[in-house]
Amino acid sequence: MSRLRIGVLHGPNLNLLGQRQPDVYGVQRLDEIDDSLKRRAEVLEVDVEPFQSNVEGELVGRIQNGAVDAWIVNAAAYTHTSVALRDALVAVDQPFVEVHLSNIFSREAFRRTSLLSDVAVGVVTGFGLQSYLLGLEAIVGHLRSDP
Amino acid sequence: MSRLRIGVLHGPNLNLLGQRQPDVYGVQRLDEIDDSLKRRAEVLEVDVEPFQSNVEGELVGRIQNGAVDAWIVNAAAYTHTSVALRDALVAVDQPFVEVHLSNIFSREAFRRTSLLSDVAVGVVTGFGLQSYLLGLEAIVGHLRSDP
Amino acid sequence: MSRLRIGVLHGPNLNLLGQRQPDVYGVQRLDEIDDSLKRRAEVLEVDVEPFQSNVEGELVGRIQNGAVDAWIVNAAAYTHTSVALRDALVAVDQPFVEVHLSNIFSREAFRRTSLLSDVAVGVVTGFGLQSYLLGLEAIVGHLRSDP
Amino acid sequence: MSRLRIGVLHGPNLNLLGQRQPDVYGVQRLDEIDDSLKRRAEVLEVDVEPFQSNVEGELVGRIQNGAVDAWIVNAAAYTHTSVALRDALVAVDQPFVEVHLSNIFSREAFRRTSLLSDVAVGVVTGFGLQSYLLGLEAIVGHLRSDP
Amino acid sequence: MSRLRIGVLHGPNLNLLGQRQPDVYGVQRLDEIDDSLKRRAEVLEVDVEPFQSNVEGELVGRIQNGAVDAWIVNAAAYTHTSVALRDALVAVDQPFVEVHLSNIFSREAFRRTSLLSDVAVGVVTGFGLQSYLLGLEAIVGHLRSDP
Amino acid sequence: MSRLRIGVLHGPNLNLLGQRQPDVYGVQRLDEIDDSLKRRAEVLEVDVEPFQSNVEGELVGRIQNGAVDAWIVNAAAYTHTSVALRDALVAVDQPFVEVHLSNIFSREAFRRTSLLSDVAVGVVTGFGLQSYLLGLEAIVGHLRSDP
Amino acid sequence: MSRLRIGVLHGPNLNLLGQRQPDVYGVQRLDEIDDSLKRRAEVLEVDVEPFQSNVEGELVGRIQNGAVDAWIVNAAAYTHTSVALRDALVAVDQPFVEVHLSNIFSREAFRRTSLLSDVAVGVVTGFGLQSYLLGLEAIVGHLRSDP
Amino acid sequence: MSRLRIGVLHGPNLNLLGQRQPDVYGVQRLDEIDDSLKRRAEVLEVDVEPFQSNVEGELVGRIQNGAVDAWIVNAAAYTHTSVALRDALVAVDQPFVEVHLSNIFSREAFRRTSLLSDVAVGVVTGFGLQSYLLGLEAIVGHLRSDP
Amino acid sequence: MSRLRIGVLHGPNLNLLGQRQPDVYGVQRLDEIDDSLKRRAEVLEVDVEPFQSNVEGELVGRIQNGAVDAWIVNAAAYTHTSVALRDALVAVDQPFVEVHLSNIFSREAFRRTSLLSDVAVGVVTGFGLQSYLLGLEAIVGHLRSDP
Amino acid sequence: MSRLRIGVLHGPNLNLLGQRQPDVYGVQRLDEIDDSLKRRAEVLEVDVEPFQSNVEGELVGRIQNGAVDAWIVNAAAYTHTSVALRDALVAVDQPFVEVHLSNIFSREAFRRTSLLSDVAVGVVTGFGLQSYLLGLEAIVGHLRSDP
Amino acid sequence: MSRLRIGVLHGPNLNLLGQRQPDVYGVQRLDEIDDSLKRRAEVLEVDVEPFQSNVEGELVGRIQNGAVDAWIVNAAAYTHTSVALRDALVAVDQPFVEVHLSNIFSREAFRRTSLLSDVAVGVVTGFGLQSYLLGLEAIVGHLRSDP
Amino acid sequence: MSRLRIGVLHGPNLNLLGQRQPDVYGVQRLDEIDDSLKRRAEVLEVDVEPFQSNVEGELVGRIQNGAVDAWIVNAAAYTHTSVALRDALVAVDQPFVEVHLSNIFSREAFRRTSLLSDVAVGVVTGFGLQSYLLGLEAIVGHLRSDP
Repeated sequence: MSRLRIGVLHGPNLNLLGQRQPDVYGVQRLDEIDDSLKRRAEVLEVDVEPFQSNVEGELVGRIQNGAVDAWIVNAAAYTHTSVALRDALVAVDQPFVEVHLSNIFSREAFRRTSLLSDVAVGVVTGFGLQSYLLGLEAIVGHLRSDP
Repeated sequence: MSRLRIGVLHGPNLNLLGQRQPDVYGVQRLDEIDDSLKRRAEVLEVDVEPFQSNVEGELVGRIQNGAVDAWIVNAAAYTHTSVALRDALVAVDQPFVEVHLSNIFSREAFRRTSLLSDVAVGVVTGFGLQSYLLGLEAIVGHLRSDP
Repeated sequence: MSRLRIGVLHGPNLNLLGQRQPDVYGVQRLDEIDDSLKRRAEVLEVDVEPFQSNVEGELVGRIQNGAVDAWIVNAAAYTHTSVALRDALVAVDQPFVEVHLSNIFSREAFRRTSLLSDVAVGVVTGFGLQSYLLGLEAIVGHLRSDP
Repeated sequence: MSRLRIGVLHGPNLNLLGQRQPDVYGVQRLDEIDDSLKRRAEVLEVDVEPFQSNVEGELVGRIQNGAVDAWIVNAAAYTHTSVALRDALVAVDQPFVEVHLSNIFSREAFRRTSLLSDVAVGVVTGFGLQSYLLGLEAIVGHLRSDP
Repeated sequence: MSRLRIGVLHGPNLNLLGQRQPDVYGVQRLDEIDDSLKRRAEVLEVDVEPFQSNVEGELVGRIQNGAVDAWIVNAAAYTHTSVALRDALVAVDQPFVEVHLSNIFSREAFRRTSLLSDVAVGVVTGFGLQSYLLGLEAIVGHLRSDP
Repeated sequence: MSRLRIGVLHGPNLNLLGQRQPDVYGVQRLDEIDDSLKRRAEVLEVDVEPFQSNVEGELVGRIQNGAVDAWIVNAAAYTHTSVALRDALVAVDQPFVEVHLSNIFSREAFRRTSLLSDVAVGVVTGFGLQSYLLGLEAIVGHLRSDP
Repeated sequence: MSRLRIGVLHGPNLNLLGQRQPDVYGVQRLDEIDDSLKRRAEVLEVDVEPFQSNVEGELVGRIQNGAVDAWIVNAAAYTHTSVALRDALVAVDQPFVEVHLSNIFSREAFRRTSLLSDVAVGVVTGFGLQSYLLGLEAIVGHLRSDP
Repeated sequence: MSRLRIGVLHGPNLNLLGQRQPDVYGVQRLDEIDDSLKRRAEVLEVDVEPFQSNVEGELVGRIQNGAVDAWIVNAAAYTHTSVALRDALVAVDQPFVEVHLSNIFSREAFRRTSLLSDVAVGVVTGFGLQSYLLGLEAIVGHLRSDP
Repeated sequence: MSRLRIGVLHGPNLNLLGQRQPDVYGVQRLDEIDDSLKRRAEVLEVDVEPFQSNVEGELVGRIQNGAVDAWIVNAAAYTHTSVALRDALVAVDQPFVEVHLSNIFSREAFRRTSLLSDVAVGVVTGFGLQSYLLGLEAIVGHLRSDP
Repeated sequence: MSRLRIGVLHGPNLNLLGQRQPDVYGVQRLDEIDDSLKRRAEVLEVDVEPFQSNVEGELVGRIQNGAVDAWIVNAAAYTHTSVALRDALVAVDQPFVEVHLSNIFSREAFRRTSLLSDVAVGVVTGFGLQSYLLGLEAIVGHLRSDP
Repeated sequence: MSRLRIGVLHGPNLNLLGQRQPDVYGVQRLDEIDDSLKRRAEVLEVDVEPFQSNVEGELVGRIQNGAVDAWIVNAAAYTHTSVALRDALVAVDQPFVEVHLSNIFSREAFRRTSLLSDVAVGVVTGFGLQSYLLGLEAIVGHLRSDP
Repeated sequence: MSRLRIGVLHGPNLNLLGQRQPDVYGVQRLDEIDDSLKRRAEVLEVDVEPFQSNVEGELVGRIQNGAVDAWIVNAAAYTHTSVALRDALVAVDQPFVEVHLSNIFSREAFRRTSLLSDVAVGVVTGFGLQSYLLGLEAIVGHLRSDP
């Protein structure tokens, strides 16, 4: 039987991770996060497929061409403005977990509203790199418990 | 005298039509909608030129490079978030009709506000494929009655 | 088999059409709109039954005594204030299309909210007389496709 | 000494009761409700005088021509939109109880606001036919305890 | 040359004047107000034509069948809820003055918003019978100064 | 067959009834209300089990340990602030009627919103002691008609 | 017996009347308005005492040093921002009529809210110079009818 | 060196878990959740100390008497209403993770606002029992990475 | 003649004073505040009776069992959420002064709204321990000047 | 060492104290309040320097020319509208206490918002003359405890 | 031909510049700003005429007595509260540029709304002294390009 | 020492400048604006590097690949909707000035809110081409004064 495949979506500006604002977003680079995810995926015996883009429509396109079983979504700024990402995730009808590096509830008011969270399975926010790793465990657990 | 040319804009995720959520959006694929529009266009003796993109800026670009007489716009998710599409449509100063497959007024609250409708000639919403066909008749009628 | 019967409801002040504010509402009189509807109905092989009143309760009464298969509703000012019309349309459980001559989204703020549109099959707004004719086509199409 | 007289006002669309939407409003017809009220009135030794209209102004007129000691008011859709009914009830200065068949707090947002309840003696909502019967007991109790 | 004709519209419940709530609305009956208006009209050499109804649609009908040069409108409760009255007054395109017996700004919050005042020539509120008399002077002055 | 058992919940400050603010809440003490409920219960052949607490969590605990068939709930101040009471009532999945001594709609703005009423079977408000008695009749009628 | 004395308050920028924006405010200068008021006052056998200032505190001071029986107040821009003027008028406990040259309800949104109108006897707005003259009649009528 | 100690707070109604509404909250009982947490704690070499109460003030008391290094908080209904819990958590100045069994963003509007999340380290919501386990991993990771 | 008795209510988390967040709440412990109040009470020749609880219902109970002439209330977090405390204070009909150690107007938005202040005699906020002492002077002055 | 100097600012209309609305503001004149403040200042061994103006800009000027150590500010109506007073108080960077004679939280809605309180040291409201005296003690205590 | 004359308005508290809060407003005094403006004016061959007042009405008066071709307006606190300044600037019908030393969009919420900006030619904000100099260039450029 | 480098960002639809809506946006083409900026840059001895895109993500990418010292940003429609642009500008931590050709405060309501202005150094709006030139001067001045 084939392994579960988990798509990972990194939204705009996340390609700057580790280079800018380490006090807010930590010192890890995006490729280091992806490496950590892959190591944890080995343990869980699943595959992860990361994708980053600053362009809203390319993220929509990635979702449509999924070939995955579920998603980990850190939509960054598009969390708060993109109905298109939401529609794409609903359209492909695959479960996803919403993750954020920082605690979006302690920041500006416009970051407290997410267009994704009510259609997500769940949300993990505020634990830096760990948010991704916990999100991976959570979505794998969700897939395996809900045949 | 040359035929009227009507640009048709399909916004994000509409390339999934017929494949996903048929209960909401019907069973027709986007190319079938385009074919229906072309057959109706033949009857009306006009040309239709469909274009789909998930990328907001590509839709803006398409509008700018118009070479059409009017537009049928189904901006999908961008209906509710894109000031840029609105500005482009106003800038090129061509009449357009806003169409939607589903009745956007019976869905989530954030879909009830359109950034386009007050600068459109009119709106047709809720009739599935027919929304496009009625929109085509409407905009052609508008062009021919308003020389 | 008997023909489909479509009730047409014209709300308050529409009896003034063609006589007042032609720049806003066009030059056609209400009886001319009704005649156009009847000619189009002949083509579609259905019957239309128009009714106009300035009294909210009389419009409610007309809906209750329907004997029709569906409605075209231009509730005019009552679009924005009448829960009673909405309740009547829901109570008789017949499909209806909401139509408006002008584009209600380009006018005063209090006209942007409709108490009818979320329970309508669909909405056509902004095309003058054509709004009625497209509405007729739309609702007949709806009835025939949805046995 | 003459019996107490209780006017009963049924607002728009209530003449459809029992014929439409039995899942929401129950299977009883309006005349059956009126009969039940009359039987209960006999027990309480009062008279009830029902009146139904779909026309806001006729309900206002009925209130003005009262010749009753108190009212049971199910204003239906006008509960939420009619300042005129409110003014009439205040003007005649007679106590009234507001009743609703369904629980208006479990329905659409626009039904949660009543223009009548702050000037009513009390409100009974959500018990179907019983709302009327309890309302009758309540208003009679109110009249008899408050000489 | 014929005299100016001024239509006077009295909205719902105003037929109760003088009989109910004299502390709020004064002790004068509606026919006494009409008599006062007629006497003042004689002095100003104009005609006044009063009309009262509790039915919104009848007031709309009266406006449509105007045959007057201007209106004095006390729409009472419909001031705050009737888009239909507003549309009728705009449709016939005749100047009108909005009057109120009581000071609507000192009463409940829902009475502070008028759907008429931004399309009126002006507003007179709070002076009891005098509101009508001053309104009459105002609208006659307006007609005579604005040929 | 055993009798129906109806739990009665009295929220904070209701233990002061009859001793304080008789103009608002009447002159009856809480034990007199309970006695009246018990007498009416005898007539209806059901049992009532009253419970009062000023502590939100004790009311939650009482609901959880129910052993009753339905509830009469006068949550007093907690009506407007307690999501915990609402959750408890939903969790035990027993029907309840919300009652209030005074008409909560004629008091301060923060009393017009109830966190309970949309999950209640119905609401009775404004009739003093009678609110409880009518609530008892209503909930018993509900239980017996809905086997 | 001494004559009634009516203070007239002209708020900021009204000293520019007749010199600026005649399309909005008319061609009359402030001294001409004062002259008209004085002539009408002669007819009514009262005295008027006009005062203009651009300084909010000077208007407050003028109210405090009143020695008048009532006020005609055109607070202009301070209508919408000055709690101090309101407090002064309430403190001296003299009746006043609020007047405006233009119809404040047809202008910008921030002009639709008055801090004065709920404590005024009444309001006259929209009739140019006539607003003052009618306001004078109204307040004199009010004083004489309310001994 | 002593082990890390993690307090676990279960808010109102969570003692009903597994007995009620299994479709919403799952089939596990609260003691089973606590057992799972303890097993995971063994793996992580930390101690967990669970506490449940329906009484807001008892939860506050538990926080004050902490003797723990961090908290896992599922405040249930008090998430949305308790400033006191928030104040207690801030006062003891210990890091905490907010967890929820269900996805609070897909439920009623009043559940979308948390009084805790902006002072939490992070939030995990929507994964049933897993929310607790992931929350435990997250807070332990936080403590160990932030010496 | 017996001395005046002043109850002092300390709300949730105030038992932590002096131990936590001294930068916000000062270095004094709650018993030191109570001692200061007692010394000042000696000077004023009154008695003070302090009471602290984290449980809302216990504070309500304390108010009901008052046996005092007036209250000093620092409801802490319950200031913003407890209708029950407000109701209890109104029910016992004793004057109270609301006090706060910190300036609640300089903190989070949800602390700017008090459910108590409009029924208090007055408010003292922002002076640390002095807020209590000034509150004591104020309420004693109030009692003595208002026999 | 020189004495502390406390400026006292009295806003618009406070010069009317004792002459107008004694039921709201008490029977003391402003000079009596100033005398009381001076006597209390003697006890505290500080100087007070009162200043009253109805002109917003003069109060600003007084603040700028301070030569004081702190302020007692009763801005009256300007409390709610003057950003300029706030800016002046912040600019001179001197501590101030905000006082009010009446309890501003029990009055009109527009009086519940203060533009000063979040930059004040604290607020005392509702105790008549005592508000000033307590405010004086409070600010002197603040100055002496915060070297 | 005479030189262009540019009036410069400095609002309340700007006379404190350079003396107070240099971190926010910079170290330059108002006369230094005026000197800089005059030097730049020499280069541009125009005249500048500065005026500062803390009194709203004096600024209105200065605008009315203009004798200038355009204005540079730094209304400071009155930017957010003065309809009177706006009316004066509109009344004299002269172009003006709105300037601010600090970036008003990064400060308190109540500073983000300007009553002037929609009637200004443009806005320059956030560059300290440079805001004035750029504003001068901008308004001179505007005057010279728009004959 | 190398010259300062200033990146210039032109948002969506600005490539149409000079071709469309010259009444709103002026007659200059975008390359003419860039040429003017370059000439002014020569005078100031800095380099400017313009970039235009209709695609939000490409603008984000341009910011990330900056190699400039500061930015001039005319985000056009994205001013009001793009959190991603804001995040990118904050992430690279370079100062920027926000510019607009037209006065955004005199246009539609949705253009009055900018997601950029509170993190900008300052804003220049309403002076057409001059907005860019003044913005260039401002940002260069800012860089040189703030070493």
